[in-house]
Amino acid sequence: MLPDPIKKFVQVFSSLPSIGPRQATRLAFYLLGLGRGQITEVAKTVADLTQLKTCPECFNVYGGGNPLCAVCSHPGRRRDLLMIVEKETDLMSLEKTKKFYGRYLILGTLDKSGLLEQAQKLKLRTLARRGPFAEIIVAVNPTIYGDLSCEAIFQEIKNAAGHTPKITRLGRGLPTGGEIEFADEETLGSALDNRG
Amino acid sequence: MLPDPIKKFVQVFSSLPSIGPRQATRLAFYLLGLGRGQITEVAKTVADLTQLKTCPECFNVYGGGNPLCAVCSHPGRRRDLLMIVEKETDLMSLEKTKKFYGRYLILGTLDKSGLLEQAQKLKLRTLARRGPFAEIIVAVNPTIYGDLSCEAIFQEIKNAAGHTPKITRLGRGLPTGGEIEFADEETLGSALDNRG
Repeated sequence: MLPDPIKKFVQVFSSLPSIGPRQATRLAFYLLGLGRGQITEVAKTVADLTQLKTCPECFNVYGGGNPLCAVCSHPGRRRDLLMIVEKETDLMSLEKTKKFYGRYLILGTLDKSGLLEQAQKLKLRTLARRGPFAEIIVAVNPTIYGDLSCEAIFQEIKNAAGHTPKITRLGRGLPTGGEIEFADEETLGSALDNRG
Repeated sequence: MLPDPIKKFVQVFSSLPSIGPRQATRLAFYLLGLGRGQITEVAKTVADLTQLKTCPECFNVYGGGNPLCAVCSHPGRRRDLLMIVEKETDLMSLEKTKKFYGRYLILGTLDKSGLLEQAQKLKLRTLARRGPFAEIIVAVNPTIYGDLSCEAIFQEIKNAAGHTPKITRLGRGLPTGGEIEFADEETLGSALDNRG
């Protein structure tokens, strides 16, 4: 019933995260309503993502002709201060604070088992040639899964770094704008421990 | 901070219906994780929508080399029975019932004012050369907006058709699987009127 190009569109787009077949169908007809010019524009926007490269040092995506990304090629950023994050979007959020002047390592989404994938272990081993580090901040989510993975990451860092750098995690406590009444026990406990 | 191709992607995709900037950003990084081959595949899927044409008779989209869509070029479908729908997806839902053997006219999304757009009036005027009709079913949503638009559509049909065909709307009543306890007064009233 549905023409092949729409069927294919629905199939491809509903395989993307948080897009279902209904939304994909609506999207297809919405695009069709925009006309050829704008459909071609949207297609080009997708295709242009292939212009991006992965930084061989921190594994973040970046554009342009440099051999390293903007953070890794920035002379003013400390070489001995490293933050390990899961995702590019975590890096973006942390950069917005403008409070970190070190470099990054993007590890990729952590498995809920707490075990590191082979690719993640290999990424952590590249730290051997990036150190020595004064401090490594393991900026993974403060969840039980994050806590589990942290143990494995700590171990891998110790093996890779050659020396034993100071390893820290992000501070825990009440989120700004949060209310004590609604905070869970764990969070309140952390807020008490980290009071100041 | 964000590389230009990602910025552009987020801008374009968050302008699409029911996709916000956060989902668009997640989508961009998800696609980047899939690699060049699959990004190109997704881009092609979008671009291929431009292969579709609009049927000059019913205004539905269709693929292939025929001058008319599959419904309009089907010799077995009654010429004197017409269903007017708002959207292609409404047509699809109605076709799935396998209970309608006439033809269609896709009017486009109706304005909440109850007034028809100029393009919609022009579409209805094409009925002058498609008739005569034994019956025209105005299959718009059973909402107050639908009811409002119906008046304008009825008027336009009478002007365009030359003769005055039988004009009907979809029946109202309890949806299958619905419960009387939770039905609103309007629906229950319709269910009583249309009992049988």
